[in-house]
Amino acid sequence: MSVQAPATLFDQDAVRRAVDTVLTDFLATQTHSALDRSLPQQAAEALSGFLGAGGKRIRPVLCVAGWQAAGGTGTLDPAIRAAASLEMFHSFALIHDDIIDASDTRRGQPTVHGQTSTHAAILIGDLVLVFADQLLHGAGLTPAQLDAVLPIANALRADTIYGQYLDISHAGQPSADPGPALTIAQYNIAKYTIEGPLLLGAALTGDGDAIRATLTACGMAVGEAFQLRDDLLGIFGNPTHTGKPCLDDLREGKTTVLMALALQNADGPQRRVLHHHVDNPHPIDAGADQIRTVLTDTGARTTVEEMITERRQSALTALDTANLPTHITAVLRSLAVSATSRTI
Amino acid sequence: MSVQAPATLFDQDAVRRAVDTVLTDFLATQTHSALDRSLPQQAAEALSGFLGAGGKRIRPVLCVAGWQAAGGTGTLDPAIRAAASLEMFHSFALIHDDIIDASDTRRGQPTVHGQTSTHAAILIGDLVLVFADQLLHGAGLTPAQLDAVLPIANALRADTIYGQYLDISHAGQPSADPGPALTIAQYNIAKYTIEGPLLLGAALTGDGDAIRATLTACGMAVGEAFQLRDDLLGIFGNPTHTGKPCLDDLREGKTTVLMALALQNADGPQRRVLHHHVDNPHPIDAGADQIRTVLTDTGARTTVEEMITERRQSALTALDTANLPTHITAVLRSLAVSATSRTI
Repeated sequence: MSVQAPATLFDQDAVRRAVDTVLTDFLATQTHSALDRSLPQQAAEALSGFLGAGGKRIRPVLCVAGWQAAGGTGTLDPAIRAAASLEMFHSFALIHDDIIDASDTRRGQPTVHGQTSTHAAILIGDLVLVFADQLLHGAGLTPAQLDAVLPIANALRADTIYGQYLDISHAGQPSADPGPALTIAQYNIAKYTIEGPLLLGAALTGDGDAIRATLTACGMAVGEAFQLRDDLLGIFGNPTHTGKPCLDDLREGKTTVLMALALQNADGPQRRVLHHHVDNPHPIDAGADQIRTVLTDTGARTTVEEMITERRQSALTALDTANLPTHITAVLRSLAVSATSRTI
Repeated sequence: MSVQAPATLFDQDAVRRAVDTVLTDFLATQTHSALDRSLPQQAAEALSGFLGAGGKRIRPVLCVAGWQAAGGTGTLDPAIRAAASLEMFHSFALIHDDIIDASDTRRGQPTVHGQTSTHAAILIGDLVLVFADQLLHGAGLTPAQLDAVLPIANALRADTIYGQYLDISHAGQPSADPGPALTIAQYNIAKYTIEGPLLLGAALTGDGDAIRATLTACGMAVGEAFQLRDDLLGIFGNPTHTGKPCLDDLREGKTTVLMALALQNADGPQRRVLHHHVDNPHPIDAGADQIRTVLTDTGARTTVEEMITERRQSALTALDTANLPTHITAVLRSLAVSATSRTI
């Protein structure tokens, strides 16, 4: 495989296909090697099903976009392999998240721990994190590229796990302070999903520092807005579109900016409605309208919409004032708009 | 810190102290950085207590021994830092193992999941695995060293996790075939604890291939013998010396060569004694003597002792025929003898 970087267009689908080819080949090699050594193949098999069942590959796409944004040209291969390692890391994170959230399904299939056991899924997740290393270390990077990329990859990983840790630490403890929820969004989504992949890709050119500030400004703003939109969709979205049961965040006692703002402004009866549903792990959906009314009447919904608009605007301004290649600016503008205004 | 490699002696205590200094400094930096960014410090704190509570640092010692065995000279620093990353990986493995084994204590202290929660400990373990990467990638290795070391580190990690996976897959399913138990010992102990650290250290010299066969022959033999000795001590050892409750392996339904050999040769009543204790998660200690009698009368105990002797001998032969520096041969000989004849 040798995909050339197109000079003036960014083909997201081609990136996804190339990344999936790398992942499929890697897993085939792992399965083969496990078989040769009489080792269990369940890990590679479970992962294969997991990766084959969907996923938007947003991190790999952003990694390749970051590489091109920083002036990357020539063969895409190293960028694609580094991007594939991000998707592998994401698989690790989801496998362990699903254990922690006690989720039954992921991408319409039973979760890995549901297919095996909690203990097996802990180990499969661990192995997948090692696979992510193997993909990155075997990406054919030059020593200079490796030197630039490893600290960014490690920071992205540590930040993601810190974000998860913060998330579970605050779960079930509704607070009227939106600070923690925003910090979680920054680590768990903005750095992990948007800024980190962009910076990792940019670092591959050895010249990532020049546009680091632009990618960070754009990535963090879009990432935060993405999470805020997700919080709104979790309450006001259509479950058949979002693929996520309505009010799931509330059921899990998730710390969100939306909830914090509502608690901040709620009067006594409104506060009781919100607390009732947080304290009740399986609220009946009949309560959904009551909650929506409180979130709307307290102004929380409007404030969150304003926060999204501000962040989208600040991302677009960062892009407008930077001197990125036109086709990359177009990709990032389109991401900033779609991630923050999506309705599904 | 700059420790010079002594030309003719190998000071294990100095290696342990230097490794502990690297680990302590690393964790202090992590705690500080988490504090600066308002991130939870529990991970670094839990790990600090964990590392401070003991541990023999056998992997770091072997890593530095492997480096010297392959002709490493000059400053010990990169070898010490790579060695510290092995100890960090070991901490990760123990944190997740303790969850899987539902262990209450580790090194005389509550386990990490006991101090926090299962979910927090999954994430703390994950973070510690990233810390291991950060230590290795920041060990000041040259591009050539990194190139040689990363594939070995990744293989060691994957093999260890495969070994754990095999272990839990076979737990509670007593078999008269010693094959799986020996495979688990190879991955979970021999490769992870002995061969892998030796090879990693040797790779640091860029000239590890020359003595790879010797280190593998010696490391695998000692590692298997170590596990076989451990199995015997788990049944016949003195719990006050081993620090492990007697018959714990049996209670956990652990797959051991000792048990498989006994089942292979047991008659009906003997088999019933063995199965009774595997099926009963909390056998009373009064049954211990009955089990010891069966393991002895079936010849399993003697066969395992013979397997240990064979492996010790083959390790010593591998060392005798290799042309390693005298002081390193002495260290490895002493390890081969102590690991296989230890009574505590």
